[in-house]
Amino acid sequence: MRQRLSIEDYIAGIRAGDRIVLSQAITVTESRLPADKELASAILKAVLAQSGNAFRIGITGVPGVGKSTFIESFGTYLTSIGKRVAVLAVDPSSQKSRGSILGDKTAMEKLSHNPKAYIRPSATGLFLGGIAKSTREIMLLCEAAGYDVILIETVGVGQSETLVKGITDFFLLLMLAGAGDELQGIKKGIMEMADAIAVNKADGDNVQAAAMAVSTYQSALHLFPKSESGCATEVLSCSALEEKGMEQIWNLIQAFEKTTKENGYFDQNRQKQNLNWMHDRIRQSLEDRFYGNPEIVMKLKSLERDVRDGKELPDLAAEDLLRIFIQKN
Amino acid sequence: MRQRLSIEDYIAGIRAGDRIVLSQAITVTESRLPADKELASAILKAVLAQSGNAFRIGITGVPGVGKSTFIESFGTYLTSIGKRVAVLAVDPSSQKSRGSILGDKTAMEKLSHNPKAYIRPSATGLFLGGIAKSTREIMLLCEAAGYDVILIETVGVGQSETLVKGITDFFLLLMLAGAGDELQGIKKGIMEMADAIAVNKADGDNVQAAAMAVSTYQSALHLFPKSESGCATEVLSCSALEEKGMEQIWNLIQAFEKTTKENGYFDQNRQKQNLNWMHDRIRQSLEDRFYGNPEIVMKLKSLERDVRDGKELPDLAAEDLLRIFIQKN
Repeated sequence: MRQRLSIEDYIAGIRAGDRIVLSQAITVTESRLPADKELASAILKAVLAQSGNAFRIGITGVPGVGKSTFIESFGTYLTSIGKRVAVLAVDPSSQKSRGSILGDKTAMEKLSHNPKAYIRPSATGLFLGGIAKSTREIMLLCEAAGYDVILIETVGVGQSETLVKGITDFFLLLMLAGAGDELQGIKKGIMEMADAIAVNKADGDNVQAAAMAVSTYQSALHLFPKSESGCATEVLSCSALEEKGMEQIWNLIQAFEKTTKENGYFDQNRQKQNLNWMHDRIRQSLEDRFYGNPEIVMKLKSLERDVRDGKELPDLAAEDLLRIFIQKN
Repeated sequence: MRQRLSIEDYIAGIRAGDRIVLSQAITVTESRLPADKELASAILKAVLAQSGNAFRIGITGVPGVGKSTFIESFGTYLTSIGKRVAVLAVDPSSQKSRGSILGDKTAMEKLSHNPKAYIRPSATGLFLGGIAKSTREIMLLCEAAGYDVILIETVGVGQSETLVKGITDFFLLLMLAGAGDELQGIKKGIMEMADAIAVNKADGDNVQAAAMAVSTYQSALHLFPKSESGCATEVLSCSALEEKGMEQIWNLIQAFEKTTKENGYFDQNRQKQNLNWMHDRIRQSLEDRFYGNPEIVMKLKSLERDVRDGKELPDLAAEDLLRIFIQKN
């Protein structure tokens, strides 16, 4: 077993904002060893009251949109105005060792040497649900350590951005100019999840195209129902490369924070997120238990085939399997 | 207990397209009596091989968009070209006796007297999941009785259109001209669920506004990712009142059917729907069992309060409840 600090040392270190202790505590929360799981729960429980004070921002966009350059630029801007920034990632692709953007810290060289910033590469070797769980816990630890803006990057593949949306206060979608083609890579519904859209790479020859993209997206968003937040989805352009537009984006986020804290959405959303998280965990565990049952595993394949091909009624197949589960559980 | 036919009589009557027997069989599938449930399963199992041959169309839109007039007009057109049409509804509002559109058959007077059409008012007194389950079963019975187009209306409240999308081959969204205000009533994500949008009430003074709405929606849909069906989401206008545009909508649907049967999406989608239906039923039953457990009911309220207010970690609360469930189950 790897060496661990005492629980008191973890708690004191995190509360003091000690980066090394924070990193060690994060390693504990990512561990799958039963003893570590207990330790992680105890640490989290102890610092829970100190967490929750950061503003949590999810950032997504297709590969190539410039997410890591954006986070480098935006994070640097935030530290320049005195914020302490933690950068996390929910990146299922890192499992396949295709190399996570954040796994390679050199992609954010400036920010990674910034004393006001803390970058945590994404956990590897975990399934997506596990990555999300540990990301949520890492976020709480970072908040307890005094970071006041949390940036969570997601690659926008599969379910990851829904998970990130479910643990953040504000969801930023990065896009590129040249509406059409590059959108093919974007999952359905993602535009409707965004609290703001930033058209990145508004630099060089691309400035005019970016301005056009902004107005196209603006008129498209007009057709969408108003967000529950009470804030319209804003569209603006930026150049992460030239560090332009960062202040505007932060102003927009601050206006969002102000409005949603005044109209009650901010608190309601966090409360709802907490509850959803609990119920999602319950659902997930129930399903793991059900689909992990050996007798169900044995029966499922052939029943699925019959249901899929319309030879068996889905309702009756479900009832058959549930009968097995209830008897044998 | 109410009088029932023999199972052989139900099966023979349905296969012969006998409307009275069909109606009686539907009543059996909607019943909650255990004996009826068994009978219903036996009937459905027996006619399953004859079902599945209709084209299934979901129709949604905000109240006031003219859904029942549209179905009257579209259904009448379909019968005029030789189709046999069954009209069903997934309408949770009918529970609250606010009066379902289809509950009041006079809203479709012409169609309800048409020998080639069969209109089934929505079941009342059921929760939404129950309505969806019986709608799916009624659809199968209607198909076995020889109806070759199924129109399923949904009021577009809450989860009902997701349920309808999950049992149909084609999803039609009815809209009105005057983009903006009337969209406020539309649920997020619904435009992305649509296979086609029809701007209704393109009549009288409204013709030009409808044409403008069509082009606005068309350019907005351009920004959306392409549908899995391989077909672009088409937008057109119609006047259900003046029975205009019905042929165009049917042509569009036929083109969709042809393309998706050729590219394999049609079958894949049905197979996926069958599987999803089974797994959704399993999930629902597991959750009913969990949240119906008396000890969990007792503990849940106070745990939910602590989780909501950030005083308890959602993961730990979930684990606590799961421990109770596993011990006591």
